[in-house]
Amino acid sequence: MPLPIVRLRPKAEARAIRHGFPWIYADELVTDRRTQKLPPGALAVLEDADRRPLALVTVNTASRIIGRVLDRNPEAVLDQPWIEARLARALQLRERLFDKPFYRLIHAEADGLPGVIIDRFGDAAVIQPNAAWADAHLDLIVAALVQVTGVKTVVMNGSGRARSLEGLAEETRVLIGEIDAPVPVSMNGATYLADLTGGQKTGLFYDQRPNHAFAAGLARDARVLDVFSHVGGFALAALAGGAASALAVDASASALALAEGGAKAGGVADRFSTRRGDAFDTLEALAEEGARFDLVICDPPAFAPAKPALEAGLRAYERIARLAAPLVAPGGYLVLCSCSHAADLASFRNASARGIGRGGRRAQLLHTGFAGADHPMLPQLAESGYLKSLFFRLDG
Amino acid sequence: MPLPIVRLRPKAEARAIRHGFPWIYADELVTDRRTQKLPPGALAVLEDADRRPLALVTVNTASRIIGRVLDRNPEAVLDQPWIEARLARALQLRERLFDKPFYRLIHAEADGLPGVIIDRFGDAAVIQPNAAWADAHLDLIVAALVQVTGVKTVVMNGSGRARSLEGLAEETRVLIGEIDAPVPVSMNGATYLADLTGGQKTGLFYDQRPNHAFAAGLARDARVLDVFSHVGGFALAALAGGAASALAVDASASALALAEGGAKAGGVADRFSTRRGDAFDTLEALAEEGARFDLVICDPPAFAPAKPALEAGLRAYERIARLAAPLVAPGGYLVLCSCSHAADLASFRNASARGIGRGGRRAQLLHTGFAGADHPMLPQLAESGYLKSLFFRLDG
Repeated sequence: MPLPIVRLRPKAEARAIRHGFPWIYADELVTDRRTQKLPPGALAVLEDADRRPLALVTVNTASRIIGRVLDRNPEAVLDQPWIEARLARALQLRERLFDKPFYRLIHAEADGLPGVIIDRFGDAAVIQPNAAWADAHLDLIVAALVQVTGVKTVVMNGSGRARSLEGLAEETRVLIGEIDAPVPVSMNGATYLADLTGGQKTGLFYDQRPNHAFAAGLARDARVLDVFSHVGGFALAALAGGAASALAVDASASALALAEGGAKAGGVADRFSTRRGDAFDTLEALAEEGARFDLVICDPPAFAPAKPALEAGLRAYERIARLAAPLVAPGGYLVLCSCSHAADLASFRNASARGIGRGGRRAQLLHTGFAGADHPMLPQLAESGYLKSLFFRLDG
Repeated sequence: MPLPIVRLRPKAEARAIRHGFPWIYADELVTDRRTQKLPPGALAVLEDADRRPLALVTVNTASRIIGRVLDRNPEAVLDQPWIEARLARALQLRERLFDKPFYRLIHAEADGLPGVIIDRFGDAAVIQPNAAWADAHLDLIVAALVQVTGVKTVVMNGSGRARSLEGLAEETRVLIGEIDAPVPVSMNGATYLADLTGGQKTGLFYDQRPNHAFAAGLARDARVLDVFSHVGGFALAALAGGAASALAVDASASALALAEGGAKAGGVADRFSTRRGDAFDTLEALAEEGARFDLVICDPPAFAPAKPALEAGLRAYERIARLAAPLVAPGGYLVLCSCSHAADLASFRNASARGIGRGGRRAQLLHTGFAGADHPMLPQLAESGYLKSLFFRLDG
């Protein structure tokens, strides 16, 4: 049976699609009754206004991104070999980048599987099917994943904002194999414990790997404070890099327990401590206690995930910088991170610099880091490079 | 004798200066007859329009940047200990970043010495006094440099665009010690030969160090093409990273001779070759020859050093990308660099992506790298982060 056809409106930009832009917005597509009846995630052939076929797409009329390009070949067939080819191409890159099979294997559009995230933890993988087509074809994707990588355990993590934008339900379950304990992951000389079924996102934030490494390079003999530490990303890397001590602050007891487990597994527990609490409150309390650190890292959750939250988000980033700066010893280092899509690099940098200034300090900007290379981007979507890590050195 | 006083115009932003902005533009200063008579590089006390002292500054009425803040303390005295304190603070950072004394020691404003560049090569240093005050106080700076670092040879390199903007003459000479051969420099496992007296800029481009390293991480078993290679920056790092072969292309015979010397010194000469010629012509010739490479790097000189050259510069970047993309083997890597102040990251990325598309290829963007951390920036001047390196992976 031939696929249904969907058509761009006359004014919509077929050129962008031809040049690799992967999305069709709701106002660009002719949404006649037939299109409106397509189930979420349906496959279709996209045509331009002159009825020339452009691409194989998936349609979700419940989403602002009504169409996503699956293949520029309109005659492509979405079957297991098609998915395997994309996984194999993604795997080839990761095997070049990393010695061990711990990485983000699929980063959605840029790896040719729109809306799909797959993180690999050795013999296990966690998949986030954050687009309706992937939810509908989950079995096929999982079969291809096992075929290409040989993983023995696959977890589906169906939490998070992206799914609700697609009208998908929240749901996390083990699809293949079993998980009975957190998985130890070695990165930058540190050991982390990733909770693949109960943790945040897929259990570990691989995206910060190069920024952890850069911080570790500054950490020799340093007293380190890691605020919003999650499972100890920066703190444990800093200890592996020779830090004298590291204090991890997080609101989540379970995240801190994983951090402590990682510290023990990595043999650095004697230099590691944790403090559970709200980050803002704890920064203020540490200042009152007169605490000083040679390296302070603040890696908060997205304060500005989308445009309406931008102004409040930037104020929150500024406040973090203002509260953290006084805790940095003379000549020490302050690392400020943002994973907010809506806050671009210049806005985030300005908010950070303003906060440092209001905290009574001056700074040099040493380094700007983004997400690791296992998080590729389409150049056409590069503005959405969400993760920014700014490395400042404060005055003496 | 008290220093002369210069004053901001009533409408000029004293707030920016108070918040760390380091420059006063010509239209912000009261340029009465007394100020106009100040010799280039004269020291003065800057006051706001209400006659409140703001900072110790240096004045150069020949420059668009008429004033540069030397010290936020208006009573500071520019003597050798003052310079030594800034050098010591800069040295402390570099000693944390690097195991060996090969780095940019002073990166101008961000290291507290406006307009001054100092690159260190072990026991030797090259200074670029690119602001009039530094030219006038060169002896003091050199004495402080020897005191703080113990270097035995100091070269002044007075070439380049920055000096002419300050009305300074071109001049390169050995100030202390002697230089009779290129200096071997070890970076990322490769050996480079730096010509401290006759080379481009200070003889070696330390700024690309982290980008060389990232390219080396992609280079295992790869056929590598390094266009605009200078002394072999990317090519020799790639060979140290396990590349099967590397071809360096440059228009300068002396740069290629240094690259060959570096390859020999690093024991990789058997996998290294050079080709002298215009980069654009050579890219076209290689395409006609049907040559293919797994990793292609293009690191051209600044095509858009300043705003009037922006459009032509972006066209040149696009052309480089268009000519280089077809030379990349399926699934291979393309690294495109810009050291143009005027081309910001988004403009350069768009020009590059456009060129790759016109070269018939699709790309993922894996990594965006800037200058190394021995090239710090003032957050207030961070837009001037001139160096951008984009790492693309091309379609299979």
